[in-house]
Amino acid sequence: MTFPVDVVVMAAGKGTRMKSLRPKVLHRLGGRALAQHVLDTAARVSARSVVVITGHGADQVEAGLQAPVGADGQALDLRFVRQEPQLGTGHAVQQAVPLLPDDGVTLVLSGDVPLTRAETLQALITQCGGERLALLTLDMPDPTGYGRIVRAEDGAVSAIIEHKDASDEQRAIREIYSGIMAVPTRLLRAWLARLDNRNAQGEYYLTDVVRFAVADGLRVEACRIADAVQVAGVNSPRQLAELERAYQRQVADELMDQGVRLADPARLDVRGTLICGQDVEIDVGCVFEGRVELGAGVRIGAHCVIANAVIQAGAVIHPFTHIDGEKLGVGVGAGSLIGPFARLRPGARLGAEVHIGNFVEVKNSTLADGAKANHLAYLGDATVGERVNYGAGSITANYDGANKHRTVIEADVHVGSNCVLVAPVTIGAGGTVGAGSTITKSTPPGSLSVARGRQASIADWKRPTKVAPKKD
Amino acid sequence: MTFPVDVVVMAAGKGTRMKSLRPKVLHRLGGRALAQHVLDTAARVSARSVVVITGHGADQVEAGLQAPVGADGQALDLRFVRQEPQLGTGHAVQQAVPLLPDDGVTLVLSGDVPLTRAETLQALITQCGGERLALLTLDMPDPTGYGRIVRAEDGAVSAIIEHKDASDEQRAIREIYSGIMAVPTRLLRAWLARLDNRNAQGEYYLTDVVRFAVADGLRVEACRIADAVQVAGVNSPRQLAELERAYQRQVADELMDQGVRLADPARLDVRGTLICGQDVEIDVGCVFEGRVELGAGVRIGAHCVIANAVIQAGAVIHPFTHIDGEKLGVGVGAGSLIGPFARLRPGARLGAEVHIGNFVEVKNSTLADGAKANHLAYLGDATVGERVNYGAGSITANYDGANKHRTVIEADVHVGSNCVLVAPVTIGAGGTVGAGSTITKSTPPGSLSVARGRQASIADWKRPTKVAPKKD
Amino acid sequence: MTFPVDVVVMAAGKGTRMKSLRPKVLHRLGGRALAQHVLDTAARVSARSVVVITGHGADQVEAGLQAPVGADGQALDLRFVRQEPQLGTGHAVQQAVPLLPDDGVTLVLSGDVPLTRAETLQALITQCGGERLALLTLDMPDPTGYGRIVRAEDGAVSAIIEHKDASDEQRAIREIYSGIMAVPTRLLRAWLARLDNRNAQGEYYLTDVVRFAVADGLRVEACRIADAVQVAGVNSPRQLAELERAYQRQVADELMDQGVRLADPARLDVRGTLICGQDVEIDVGCVFEGRVELGAGVRIGAHCVIANAVIQAGAVIHPFTHIDGEKLGVGVGAGSLIGPFARLRPGARLGAEVHIGNFVEVKNSTLADGAKANHLAYLGDATVGERVNYGAGSITANYDGANKHRTVIEADVHVGSNCVLVAPVTIGAGGTVGAGSTITKSTPPGSLSVARGRQASIADWKRPTKVAPKKD
Repeated sequence: MTFPVDVVVMAAGKGTRMKSLRPKVLHRLGGRALAQHVLDTAARVSARSVVVITGHGADQVEAGLQAPVGADGQALDLRFVRQEPQLGTGHAVQQAVPLLPDDGVTLVLSGDVPLTRAETLQALITQCGGERLALLTLDMPDPTGYGRIVRAEDGAVSAIIEHKDASDEQRAIREIYSGIMAVPTRLLRAWLARLDNRNAQGEYYLTDVVRFAVADGLRVEACRIADAVQVAGVNSPRQLAELERAYQRQVADELMDQGVRLADPARLDVRGTLICGQDVEIDVGCVFEGRVELGAGVRIGAHCVIANAVIQAGAVIHPFTHIDGEKLGVGVGAGSLIGPFARLRPGARLGAEVHIGNFVEVKNSTLADGAKANHLAYLGDATVGERVNYGAGSITANYDGANKHRTVIEADVHVGSNCVLVAPVTIGAGGTVGAGSTITKSTPPGSLSVARGRQASIADWKRPTKVAPKKD
Repeated sequence: MTFPVDVVVMAAGKGTRMKSLRPKVLHRLGGRALAQHVLDTAARVSARSVVVITGHGADQVEAGLQAPVGADGQALDLRFVRQEPQLGTGHAVQQAVPLLPDDGVTLVLSGDVPLTRAETLQALITQCGGERLALLTLDMPDPTGYGRIVRAEDGAVSAIIEHKDASDEQRAIREIYSGIMAVPTRLLRAWLARLDNRNAQGEYYLTDVVRFAVADGLRVEACRIADAVQVAGVNSPRQLAELERAYQRQVADELMDQGVRLADPARLDVRGTLICGQDVEIDVGCVFEGRVELGAGVRIGAHCVIANAVIQAGAVIHPFTHIDGEKLGVGVGAGSLIGPFARLRPGARLGAEVHIGNFVEVKNSTLADGAKANHLAYLGDATVGERVNYGAGSITANYDGANKHRTVIEADVHVGSNCVLVAPVTIGAGGTVGAGSTITKSTPPGSLSVARGRQASIADWKRPTKVAPKKD
Repeated sequence: MTFPVDVVVMAAGKGTRMKSLRPKVLHRLGGRALAQHVLDTAARVSARSVVVITGHGADQVEAGLQAPVGADGQALDLRFVRQEPQLGTGHAVQQAVPLLPDDGVTLVLSGDVPLTRAETLQALITQCGGERLALLTLDMPDPTGYGRIVRAEDGAVSAIIEHKDASDEQRAIREIYSGIMAVPTRLLRAWLARLDNRNAQGEYYLTDVVRFAVADGLRVEACRIADAVQVAGVNSPRQLAELERAYQRQVADELMDQGVRLADPARLDVRGTLICGQDVEIDVGCVFEGRVELGAGVRIGAHCVIANAVIQAGAVIHPFTHIDGEKLGVGVGAGSLIGPFARLRPGARLGAEVHIGNFVEVKNSTLADGAKANHLAYLGDATVGERVNYGAGSITANYDGANKHRTVIEADVHVGSNCVLVAPVTIGAGGTVGAGSTITKSTPPGSLSVARGRQASIADWKRPTKVAPKKD
């Protein structure tokens, strides 16, 4: 028994308590918009299509979400409908049903509930079975204030009773409705047509479909979980921070289960995808963003921030290293030593056994195997050959105020301290540049090139003496 | 019914378990002395005056506390009395009563109990009503060892019974005395005169006033709370650390309730005042000290330390940025990009859209809109014009070994890499300084100025070869 | 009644769930191998000898552990035996007993249980008394799945019953066996000879000795604890991280009990030995490795990483400072100010009141009292005299591409900004080096030495203009 699944995501709410100009469902958790988590989970349950219902900040929400990619590598069919004005959850779904084919099951999700597991939704869909209304429910230690799930003797749901309407016996029930349901689309369409807003709030409630189903003699299933995080919504910065921590703890646990050793799982932040080889070690306070790959045996020191980079096996990243490849990416070769206090920027491509030391910045540059820049240096728009030693305090002057130019430092060159290489310029293979030189013309291979003033000393020189500050 | 409130703060204790040369009440929580928190709270309940009872380290304590400022902008009347020798809590308050006018209520606080909420004290004062003794009490899950509050049928306190003297029934009581009371001063004065020290410790106990009140037929009220943090005292570094965390969690919650988004509320430290506009985001591991203002949309990256600064709307502070304005302050203009690995020191004043990049230090310098210093540079005592591009590795030599001088870089100047500008010096508007130049004389507007050696190469130069180290 | 104690450490397991190439007992907790913790604890109970039973990765394990040093300063007798193949815990100990003299007590420990307290083991040994089998047991809130300790009326252990074999009454028992026992060696030897492997797994179980003891009419003692951390084993990266945090919390508590003030005990990592004087303060996010000594009143700022260093009284280490002395050590003199963003490397020896500021690296250099290097500088292989001021951006060129040479900067020298001192070179006492100079020859005392190009300006210079990028 298979049937297509179409997902409806409620994303029209304002999220007043967020106190933000950003629509609630675009707030980020683990580096992704809340609603994007929901879409990505939809892809993992092999949904056929997704309809997102927008309202507040609809333009932003529609621009801020991307069609998720399913297991087959294909992007899901993602459409948006607008709910204006907003007259309740039933009214929201009414906007979406015209886009949903009758042959499927509709899975109703909330754009501000980011951490539902795909397996949970799969179980819910299975309970729906293409024929029944199935509700995702939660067992809560203290359900005060929530609508209770009343079950018949055979376990089927007979009603959702609001807290204020519940008897003492019903209030003892700890099972509540999560807001997530799976329902055959043809039934949903019919039930939605029967909704009315004759209630205190004057809203159309989606939960009324439970009443219709029972009245129609259809069985209503409840798929009960105990893990509140999976159905927790984000309504405030506090809740966002709580779920962020829950999410990060999940990521940390998954990494550890793969064998990654974390000095402190509570002090890891992964906002994207972190792929680790065997025997990777990550020290405290590290932040990973975008897509980062760490090869076997890579060690990441304390307090590193690393984004969009591929770091090969055996490389060691010392503390306080900042790597961000942005769109160009950064590559660090096997066995390289980076940091502390190093910064690798977009387009830094480091070969094997490269050393980048403290207070060194590398941008859009290629360093071949064994090259070293250990101290206080800048390499921008440079091509650096094998075994080059780039001296402390040396700078590639790659920008003439208008254009960027390339510096080529061929293999085995030794650049002295505090040099400037004014691009475009090439330092020939095996050459040496004397300390303190500003090199504006290319130099021959094997040569020593120097550009500096002559040293002179003035004996018995009197230093300036302290002048009393003038009174204003 | 209103009446003046005079606060007495017990601050004579040594705090032996702190194992510190610093008197206990001067240890810092959230950047302020413990007793300063108590004084500041006193100001929030509109106290008329504060008397601090000092003893151990009295000189230090008296020098280390400041009169708090009330809601009316006026500093409270703050006086100190010394308790020498220290003969108990009753004896302590006896030193203070001569300073307290009879028309008021005395609120007795402890200098090592920093986190009592003003609303709690206000409720206590209200219960006192200018007529009754009112005790702040705490419901504890496990009150073993504490004196229990025994109440009469009408809810009034009839006694405080020490744990060792308590019956089994009394030991089942979970309500204990917090050490904080509000009492009409004229009654307090009379009761204190009746204290004696005929007890095992030979001390004068303030709690004996409860017995006197009951004996006099006066009603004793108990204002009961359940939040232990509010009445927790600091006696050891462990307790100090626990309360520091409780305090920081409160600060984080308040910020989040204002809409600030924190990546991890457990990894934020605010030691002073942090004022945030809308849509501020703060990443993990940040520390704020003194007074810091963050404009709307400001983003603070991971592991930043920021003190005494005003950061305008839309600025982005990248990870590992250190800003400390100390007394001069630091200003960062709207839309500026700072860091990573940047340091802004006192008197750094940055206009709009200024970029300060990695390994750049700015001290006592003004940078006009659009100025950039992106790499490995020092700007000290400089005035930098609009759109200036200050090259990598360039330095203002502002100190001649005796005096500091100013460097002026006029608008649209381009300073090349690894330059030194030897102050006092002015680079004229629109000028260019060639890479590697040491500029000692002011340069005309629009000119290219260079000061460097002529480049020469020696062909087929033999590098030094490795010498075997001498044996010692 | 005294008797020698010989320790047997089980360290043959593979630790499959660690998913690591490293044998399980070599994984690090607090900077030390798990099994090294066990050996070090053995030394604290005055063991006579230790026998480690290795198997998986035996070569690595044997190379990776060091004989611990006892209270008398003597290294314990440490021997290894191999268990190949691995036929159960009893079989493991059978490999070790040939090395154990009959006059002693054997204490059986697990190499993957790192946090047992020496006092706990001492109590177990005392219960053994040289005569009885004594088991270390744990009271667990939920013992499901564990073997239960069944006690006779007199409190002696009568059996260990596996969960699956236990009656309902026995399953109510919450006391379980920890895997740690003390047993007279002559008895152990005899009992091990009686083991068989006629059980479902076909293994020889050490716990069968309990049955033999009871059968022989010998009393079996149980030494019961409630602290699960002490007997927790490491089988996965998650468990390793949990115990790491438990260990770090213990270290933090011990430091606080000594009077050290920690901004956040949950954000301190000590991987080695941290010795603190009075009134030391450590801010959030700090990591200490190897042996670090902090003198009285030392303050460590946020996010510092410090290894193998001695920091004298009153020194202040600002945030983001990285110090690692490795084998040579680092010394920071009294009252020195270091950082932010400073790096002190092996052999950095700083006198009193030395200032090392931002983006400054010091390696294998001596700085006398009052010397300063405040901005963007490198001092390598240098000897720096008293009160020297080493300018921003200045570099010692200590490496000629083959050999390292020394730079000597005598007392009271002022090195200007962006200088290079090409070693070997000496700057004579009281001398000044002009900004931007590259100094290749030693300079006389008291002189001003300059080596720079002549400044020239070209009026009305046209800057390069932006060139449209070529199309590929």
